[in-house]
Amino acid sequence: MTIEFVFEDVVRIYDTDAQGIAHYASYYRFFTNTIEKFMRDKVGIPYPNVSDDLWFVMVETHATYKEPVRLGDNLTITISPSSLSKKTIKFDMKIISKGRLTTQGYVIQVAINPKIWKATEIPDNILKSIVEA
Amino acid sequence: MTIEFVFEDVVRIYDTDAQGIAHYASYYRFFTNTIEKFMRDKVGIPYPNVSDDLWFVMVETHATYKEPVRLGDNLTITISPSSLSKKTIKFDMKIISKGRLTTQGYVIQVAINPKIWKATEIPDNILKSIVEA
Amino acid sequence: MTIEFVFEDVVRIYDTDAQGIAHYASYYRFFTNTIEKFMRDKVGIPYPNVSDDLWFVMVETHATYKEPVRLGDNLTITISPSSLSKKTIKFDMKIISKGRLTTQGYVIQVAINPKIWKATEIPDNILKSIVEA
Amino acid sequence: MTIEFVFEDVVRIYDTDAQGIAHYASYYRFFTNTIEKFMRDKVGIPYPNVSDDLWFVMVETHATYKEPVRLGDNLTITISPSSLSKKTIKFDMKIISKGRLTTQGYVIQVAINPKIWKATEIPDNILKSIVEA
Repeated sequence: MTIEFVFEDVVRIYDTDAQGIAHYASYYRFFTNTIEKFMRDKVGIPYPNVSDDLWFVMVETHATYKEPVRLGDNLTITISPSSLSKKTIKFDMKIISKGRLTTQGYVIQVAINPKIWKATEIPDNILKSIVEA
Repeated sequence: MTIEFVFEDVVRIYDTDAQGIAHYASYYRFFTNTIEKFMRDKVGIPYPNVSDDLWFVMVETHATYKEPVRLGDNLTITISPSSLSKKTIKFDMKIISKGRLTTQGYVIQVAINPKIWKATEIPDNILKSIVEA
Repeated sequence: MTIEFVFEDVVRIYDTDAQGIAHYASYYRFFTNTIEKFMRDKVGIPYPNVSDDLWFVMVETHATYKEPVRLGDNLTITISPSSLSKKTIKFDMKIISKGRLTTQGYVIQVAINPKIWKATEIPDNILKSIVEA
Repeated sequence: MTIEFVFEDVVRIYDTDAQGIAHYASYYRFFTNTIEKFMRDKVGIPYPNVSDDLWFVMVETHATYKEPVRLGDNLTITISPSSLSKKTIKFDMKIISKGRLTTQGYVIQVAINPKIWKATEIPDNILKSIVEA
């Protein structure tokens, strides 16, 4: 069973646009903030550039926007990690504000060796830490 | 049949990140640049805030990243519009660089009346211009 | 005497660019994060849109970059507020990383009434809280 | 005498914020767009990473905001280059919209050899092309 990791964030002025709501691409920043903190605090590795031999590169992103969030809104962001293969991890993300699910999405990343820019297996201990974090 | 609209862009320094490639969220800026130009040049309306009664708000976004693009790379971006309903439009997007498909994605937007923040039908002439542009 | 307020931040992947360092415009995001937290925690007001009658709008920004900061670097950001007039506040900012001053800058903001988009005096209690925070 | 180079841009949705105007940091994107095009079209070099031996890194940025610009506004941006030394170039920038000067600023960059991350002299032919462009 995946235990969710929770991150608190806030909608800042540069996240918003002239519709008075958070710009749709800003949500990917909320996702990244959460993933990075999850990786640092729960898995214990830097992210997305783990080492000279291991980077996580993005291969797919998706978000559905159910309700807008606005300047100053407090956000609770949850992350549910899973492995799609020994080389690929998926993070399911939810953003809750004022008790309501406002946004849902996911990002999929593949591990690569940046020296040859080829997919590589995630070391067992790291993969285990991610999916069991 | 949908005729595709084509937009030329370039990867700028602020689009890139410390992996030496365009950051995954920058692609949504490439999409937006293309959509905005399509709306202005082909449909003849400002975007996404068309008027005091009509805004397009984002409800879903998706991208798959097949190959990275790098600082200075020239991009050819195609947009294929379709209507999912009288209130909802989808833009299928492709990014080609150096003759290869590097990124594929879509964005779905719903028309709202911003005064009451409720979905509204897209005026016939606008909807027609978008899907037949 | 101005007591400085201190904020901790970190260089994230979207802050960096293909030079492998934080992009020069990202520093203004570090500044904004710090100012916003200062305003919320020390002054007790939302920022930059305080109320329907009071917004802070940016009129001048400046930064000098002495040493680069990189992905994952921890940042200590200090803010020293001062009032240039009853309508104008200046925040002097410093960013320290690994014990060294890496960036120095300031932002100047004027208070406006957004309904008429004209400069307005900052209420005494708010101005006092800002400069004595 | 410096001949100014002129670039046309437009305020896009992601440039704006919840004050309904272009966010203050977006102006640095307008500056960068202009500089990059100037370097490519007039000087004939990629920017800011010219080659493996020559990068331009930002050492100082400044902007004053006289009047706001809004979603969809057309911008005319002028760039006036000058050399402060054999290693340092300054670009004075102006943004005009609807016939009015809305923003004025400058950015200063130093040439470095990225392999050793030390300041280096700008090759004569490039420096000459920049200041006489």
